[in-house]
Order: sequence, then structure tokens, then C-alpha cells
Amino acid sequence: MPATLEVWYEFASTYSHVAVQRVEALAAKAGVPLAWRVFLLGPIFREQGWNDSPFNIYPAKGAYMWRDVERRCAKFGIPFRKPTQFPRNGLTAARAALVAEDEPWIGRFVRAVYLANFAEDHDIADPARVRALLATAGCADPDALLARASSAENKEHLRTRSHAAVAHGIFGAPSFVVNGELFWGDDRLEDALEWSRRA
Amino acid sequence: MPATLEVWYEFASTYSHVAVQRVEALAAKAGVPLAWRVFLLGPIFREQGWNDSPFNIYPAKGAYMWRDVERRCAKFGIPFRKPTQFPRNGLTAARAALVAEDEPWIGRFVRAVYLANFAEDHDIADPARVRALLATAGCADPDALLARASSAENKEHLRTRSHAAVAHGIFGAPSFVVNGELFWGDDRLEDALEWSRRA
Repeated sequence: MPATLEVWYEFASTYSHVAVQRVEALAAKAGVPLAWRVFLLGPIFREQGWNDSPFNIYPAKGAYMWRDVERRCAKFGIPFRKPTQFPRNGLTAARAALVAEDEPWIGRFVRAVYLANFAEDHDIADPARVRALLATAGCADPDALLARASSAENKEHLRTRSHAAVAHGIFGAPSFVVNGELFWGDDRLEDALEWSRRA
Repeated sequence: MPATLEVWYEFASTYSHVAVQRVEALAAKAGVPLAWRVFLLGPIFREQGWNDSPFNIYPAKGAYMWRDVERRCAKFGIPFRKPTQFPRNGLTAARAALVAEDEPWIGRFVRAVYLANFAEDHDIADPARVRALLATAGCADPDALLARASSAENKEHLRTRSHAAVAHGIFGAPSFVVNGELFWGDDRLEDALEWSRRA
């Protein structure tokens, strides 16, 4: 049986948008079980001395990234429009996604948050937006879920999760982990799935 | 007729090793004409405040890169052994490659330099090593070529080349340029070839 593919994603990450829109269909086709692993890149970037996205700090890299993401989305038929604000604060959405990690509708919610940010140019930092996306994804009681999301326990869980990312050697998003083997970037998704199949 | 694929490479770059060992066979199969474009990343990195490879400055990224390059080389059947020194100074080799850019044996020389560095752990900064690689690749008079390589004119040509890289939006290696469209990374080689075919 194929090994579980852990999908480590951060809501502000452009290439996570591409991977997240693709991963469920590809994993289902390959018979690979998925585990969603939301985390925050901010603390990891700050440890490297960055207090903004490296795509903003390094303009040539940023200009290339927007063009490359646009090309990749066109290639895979994924909706994309460069957001008017980048990066957007995904903290509320991340806390909600952590609470909902094992819900049957988690994939729909995650995809919807990325589409809101990177295709519809909506502010995913707005709790009302997150609430609406939860409801549409299939969450029966978005208010209760958001209350749990903002609990001290869940905030601590998200901090622990980001420490776990560092322990896995993760330094960017999306990342995939299969039996401890790390793959970084949307363009390694197929390799990670193949690693899972051979496990 | 397919558009020319410009291969922008830097001899210290690990992922350039992977791309350079693959590109001639893939381009020949696709009927895509190649243009070799050696350049130096050092000046570009220094402008970003780095005076070493980012893979050395950011240890998590570096650790991942060595594992990823090892996996990709295994996948494509490319010889690879992590060199005992990284990055190695590729300036002499780059000056020679610039002089030889239109020679029929340029591809053999470029591949041989990368194999020396990233498979045989040889010091490509050693002029005697570069001379031997030139001879093996098919250069009839390596001493004359190395003399031209170290001329003031050729040194200036290499500086101009690296400025041209920046003008193309290049910030890393390998990069591919097709009709002004930029692709970065060994993992975009197939996309760049496809872009050339559709041109």
C-alpha cells in the first residue's frame, strides 16, 4: 500500500495554490492517501532574516515567479489572477484549517481559500470571508469552528506544527513529506507521489 | 521552425549540472536549436547581499538541494557525487567556454566540466584541469584557446554577458530563454523546449 503523502502548505504561498488545486485528483488516481499539514512560513522566514516574502525582497525572483505561476496555472487549467495584495495574512484561515484537518471537506476548504486569494483577489485575512468559505466547503457550524480555531490550545498547536516543519527540514511551501523524505515545490508533486507508490 | 533555446549556465551551479547533461539530447530530439550562454552568478548574488552560495547561507535549503540533486541525477541516470568543495571557482572554465561558444565541441566541453566538478570531485579552478578537459572535448589547441580566454577582450565579454543575464531577468542557474521568455531551473527545461516548439 502506498505511503501517506503529507501536503505541507501555507496560505500565502503562490506555488501552494498550484499544488493544492492538483493534489487530490492526482493522489486519488495513484491510490495515495493524503494528510493535510497547514503551517506558517513567517516564523521560518524571520529566522532567515526576512520580514517579507522573498519574492518581494528579491524583485527579479518575484517578477519571474508571477510569470511562472501564471504559465503553470494555464498549463494545468487552474484559475489564477495576480492578487492586488501579496502576501496576504493567512493566519485565521490556517487556524481554521488546522482544526478541520481531518474533516471530509478539508480539501474543498483549502482549495477555496487559495482560489479566493489567487483567482478572485479576495482578502483571506477577513474572518467573514473565512467563515463564508467554511460554510461553502461543507462545515456545518462555521462559528463553532472559528471559536475553536482561535482558542489558546489551537494557537499553540499551530506553533507546534511550524516547529515540526523545521524539524522535517522544511524551508518553503508547498512541501511534501513521504516516510520522512522531503520534496519542495509544486514541481516535485509527481516525484513525491511516485515515492509514495514505491514505498 | 522551433525558436532557439538559450541555455544560461554557471559552472558552480548544481542544477546546471543536471540540465547540461540532458539538454543536447532533448533538444536534438525536439529539433530545437541550442545556444550556449555561459555567465557568472557571483556578481548577481553579491548585488543581493550574498557573498556565498545561498545553499551555504541557508543550511536547510542547502541540505535539501544536495538530496534533491542526488535524486534527480538518479532519475535521469546522470553521474553525481557531492563535491568536497562547494562552490568551486568556475571563472577559468567560464572564460574558456565563452571563447569556444560556437565550436562544434562546446557541448562536450561544458558537460565534461560539470562531470569533473559534480561526479569526479576535481578542482575545475585548476587551469591544468581545464586544459585537459578542452583537449578531451576536441579542442585542437587548448593553449591558444586559454590564451584567448584570459585576454582583456574576453574578460570584458564575460562581464557584458553577466550584465545581459540581469537584463533578461535572470537571477539563478540554469535559466533558459526562448524569444525573450524566461524559464528558471532544470525542472523547467521541458517547458522551455515546448515553448520553443510552439514558437
